[in-house]
Amino acid sequence: MTVRHASSRLEVEVSAPAHLVFSVAVSSDYPDIEEELTFRVGDREVEAEELIAPSGSRLHRIREAPVGTLHVDYRATVASPSPEAEIQGIDEILYTRPSRYCDSDRLANLSHTHFAGLTGYELMSAVTQWVRTKVTYRPGSSRVVDGALETYLSRAGVCRDSAHLVVAFLRGLNMPARLVSVYAPGLRPMDFHAVAEAYHDGRWYLLDATGLAPRQPMVRICTGRDAADTAFMTTLGGRTRLTRLAVDASVDGDLPYDDRFSFVTLT
Amino acid sequence: MTVRHASSRLEVEVSAPAHLVFSVAVSSDYPDIEEELTFRVGDREVEAEELIAPSGSRLHRIREAPVGTLHVDYRATVASPSPEAEIQGIDEILYTRPSRYCDSDRLANLSHTHFAGLTGYELMSAVTQWVRTKVTYRPGSSRVVDGALETYLSRAGVCRDSAHLVVAFLRGLNMPARLVSVYAPGLRPMDFHAVAEAYHDGRWYLLDATGLAPRQPMVRICTGRDAADTAFMTTLGGRTRLTRLAVDASVDGDLPYDDRFSFVTLT
Amino acid sequence: MTVRHASSRLEVEVSAPAHLVFSVAVSSDYPDIEEELTFRVGDREVEAEELIAPSGSRLHRIREAPVGTLHVDYRATVASPSPEAEIQGIDEILYTRPSRYCDSDRLANLSHTHFAGLTGYELMSAVTQWVRTKVTYRPGSSRVVDGALETYLSRAGVCRDSAHLVVAFLRGLNMPARLVSVYAPGLRPMDFHAVAEAYHDGRWYLLDATGLAPRQPMVRICTGRDAADTAFMTTLGGRTRLTRLAVDASVDGDLPYDDRFSFVTLT
Amino acid sequence: MTVRHASSRLEVEVSAPAHLVFSVAVSSDYPDIEEELTFRVGDREVEAEELIAPSGSRLHRIREAPVGTLHVDYRATVASPSPEAEIQGIDEILYTRPSRYCDSDRLANLSHTHFAGLTGYELMSAVTQWVRTKVTYRPGSSRVVDGALETYLSRAGVCRDSAHLVVAFLRGLNMPARLVSVYAPGLRPMDFHAVAEAYHDGRWYLLDATGLAPRQPMVRICTGRDAADTAFMTTLGGRTRLTRLAVDASVDGDLPYDDRFSFVTLT
Repeated sequence: MTVRHASSRLEVEVSAPAHLVFSVAVSSDYPDIEEELTFRVGDREVEAEELIAPSGSRLHRIREAPVGTLHVDYRATVASPSPEAEIQGIDEILYTRPSRYCDSDRLANLSHTHFAGLTGYELMSAVTQWVRTKVTYRPGSSRVVDGALETYLSRAGVCRDSAHLVVAFLRGLNMPARLVSVYAPGLRPMDFHAVAEAYHDGRWYLLDATGLAPRQPMVRICTGRDAADTAFMTTLGGRTRLTRLAVDASVDGDLPYDDRFSFVTLT
Repeated sequence: MTVRHASSRLEVEVSAPAHLVFSVAVSSDYPDIEEELTFRVGDREVEAEELIAPSGSRLHRIREAPVGTLHVDYRATVASPSPEAEIQGIDEILYTRPSRYCDSDRLANLSHTHFAGLTGYELMSAVTQWVRTKVTYRPGSSRVVDGALETYLSRAGVCRDSAHLVVAFLRGLNMPARLVSVYAPGLRPMDFHAVAEAYHDGRWYLLDATGLAPRQPMVRICTGRDAADTAFMTTLGGRTRLTRLAVDASVDGDLPYDDRFSFVTLT
Repeated sequence: MTVRHASSRLEVEVSAPAHLVFSVAVSSDYPDIEEELTFRVGDREVEAEELIAPSGSRLHRIREAPVGTLHVDYRATVASPSPEAEIQGIDEILYTRPSRYCDSDRLANLSHTHFAGLTGYELMSAVTQWVRTKVTYRPGSSRVVDGALETYLSRAGVCRDSAHLVVAFLRGLNMPARLVSVYAPGLRPMDFHAVAEAYHDGRWYLLDATGLAPRQPMVRICTGRDAADTAFMTTLGGRTRLTRLAVDASVDGDLPYDDRFSFVTLT
Repeated sequence: MTVRHASSRLEVEVSAPAHLVFSVAVSSDYPDIEEELTFRVGDREVEAEELIAPSGSRLHRIREAPVGTLHVDYRATVASPSPEAEIQGIDEILYTRPSRYCDSDRLANLSHTHFAGLTGYELMSAVTQWVRTKVTYRPGSSRVVDGALETYLSRAGVCRDSAHLVVAFLRGLNMPARLVSVYAPGLRPMDFHAVAEAYHDGRWYLLDATGLAPRQPMVRICTGRDAADTAFMTTLGGRTRLTRLAVDASVDGDLPYDDRFSFVTLT
């Protein structure tokens, strides 16, 4: 794997002192990172506490961001791949449960309607292919409160909606599956990206129903049950408004070709 | 705290080899437990693997329960209280997020409508009181796929529905809250019980909007975001039917009197 | 057609003066009815105003039912069949629109998933057959606020739920369809019954996915977009509780045999 | 009332022969209209059948619009006001029922929470005022499948969403209410507009929670239970895409001043 670069820059208008959590730093799994993360209001740096979620994701919390414009700047160079995602016994169970935006209990009959009888690689392929062909990528068509059932019915959404539906379909047939936010070199238009991971035969496979970027160079940020866990910014108090978001991701050299059909893990 | 006794007995018809997870054993927090847990099909004992969830809950998994009638027998004596639930930095964030059955993002405007301006103890009291007086306890009126919004609209449900609504209201105002399944001495009719815990000022407070049993002697089983995490039995494959469930819980000596107004932690 | 008999008896506890609408009388389409309809509180008769809905259904309204026990008694003998339901140009359009409990706009993609390419008789057969085999008849499993999407997801309900799903599937493919409440000789357990009607090639065909009673002797009560239009009792003010409901329906002589596969109109 | 002018122009790409219904002509209630309505594909005029809905609304149906670009042109001059909307006994009942987008049965507890105890003029004022201040007008924020509950939760939408919520709140307290599509002189940006009508004391009052245009000069197009009845275009078969919509409405002379607080009927 070649060297990968990722960066993001946010501007947040804080109009009442705010309790904020950011998930913009790459996962703690990467052995070899050079990175810089700063939080500033005007000239003044603001302290953030780093917290590690059970999945290894790193969150940065600011308990009391002062009123003003908060600038978040993140920049990382990832020199080597992460080891494959570790499997803990409990994960298999946690990630098969329905979650806020992957309401697999509501969709269970639909998982059976479309995919009954399929397992393992065939199931992962069929589900990804179904979502790729049936769900139209259409920014603005979905809402942040929408879950997989909503996407199933409306057949339109953005990357997180497609990933939620992939995850929910798989859980409906008892395959553990989860959401991952990533930096995605080659994505157009560039933004944070969301993909699914499915657990089969001892490994977590990366599934991206959007096909908007090659999978191999993606860099893991946050892993969770769904977007409730992986949102790049969460406001837990106070009043804020995101006024600017710029994301970048690239590789040294050429982007790899992704045939979309092989099975790939996120490293 | 006096000595507490808890037991549960399940019979599960397995009609196709099944992958099962049980959450019937008391939490790993208790320092001083005598217990017995057996899984049998006919005369034959079936092995179960114990897994510890991030919250300290103990799950028991049987990867391939054979066809037949599975008997689950659990019996515990809890001699001393647990230490108060430990707080990890990340928990505050995890338990403020919306979850499958505590869809606090959908209910956020309603949290504000009913409770805006309240914080801390006043908020916990007001929310518990609202749910106690507005939501009718009515077995059979709700469905396992129902979340807090559904309960808010229909104003009826069972203990898990009331607890979900308490949790969702609190999260809607950014107070961390979660669901706990418990053995509840004094509950009528006796069953597994579900309550809410809310995090304030360094402690997790037990909130029970049903008022169906005194809070002090409750024994923690499983802690999670909502009932997706705390269900006493989950089928992850195969085909099963619960044909019998008997729960018991008691204390040595008299049940304590619960004034319902003081703040109590679950020990 | 042989002579048919229908009756219903309701007891309604009125605890605050109530505005009530009843739909228990057979449709105004029948040319040859002998009937009696009385509303009493204690010994005193209460006046009801008869209103004819656009579909020909007869509603009986009591603007101010006094506090007490309201007894509603209806008894009819239907000597001859009604002419076939008349078609008005506008009906084709009205009954293709989504309605409260037949949310065909939400289900449109599902209509296509299951039935795309079918039209006319084949479509009616396939939809009825799908609902008959996939939706379990289970009293208590559904709620009065449930629409067709809910029934599709849960796959269980009562007669009105099955009829709503039939109607919604058909409208999703632009076939006009509607709900009809009927007296159904042979129904077990006896109750008010709900069926669907679909418009094709100039006629309204009766579709009953439950198969719980023969279709030929059914007697039309109320025709509407869905159960919002056809409920046997609606409280528009005051406070009431239905405390007793007894329905009866029979034919002179033997009940006809219903092969369930032929196409039948409701007369 | 001064002379009013209304016009609309639609372009519809028909890519498979389509069954179409338009609701662009002003209501049949107006005694004194000069109007022109044409349907053309290329140079060729297409026949449309006029149908009168039970509410007096005029629909125009084209059973088989040929492939091509369909141009719909409507232009009307309304010289005198309509008589006030007539009341039929049955209407009071029909318009109190829940409907597809005015799911008042789901919202009933919320109607009580916010408005219990209010009746008549006070109720109409309070509901309109609530929706005006709480629901943000934000094009693109809602979906055509959204009903009043959705708008209540998200607190954002367009004119039809606000009108649906007004209607649902009122029905939840048993006040008959309905949706009306109108030409609205003074509306910015100009478009078809949707308002609510509420029935009280023998009259239908016009309620517009958006306040985007003066109420007095509005011209009634279509009256119905909700937007399922009043949509300006419905495709009942074939494949179509609306590619252009231009609406205009004006009065001779100055627009009247609307204080928004008086009670007005739609004439």
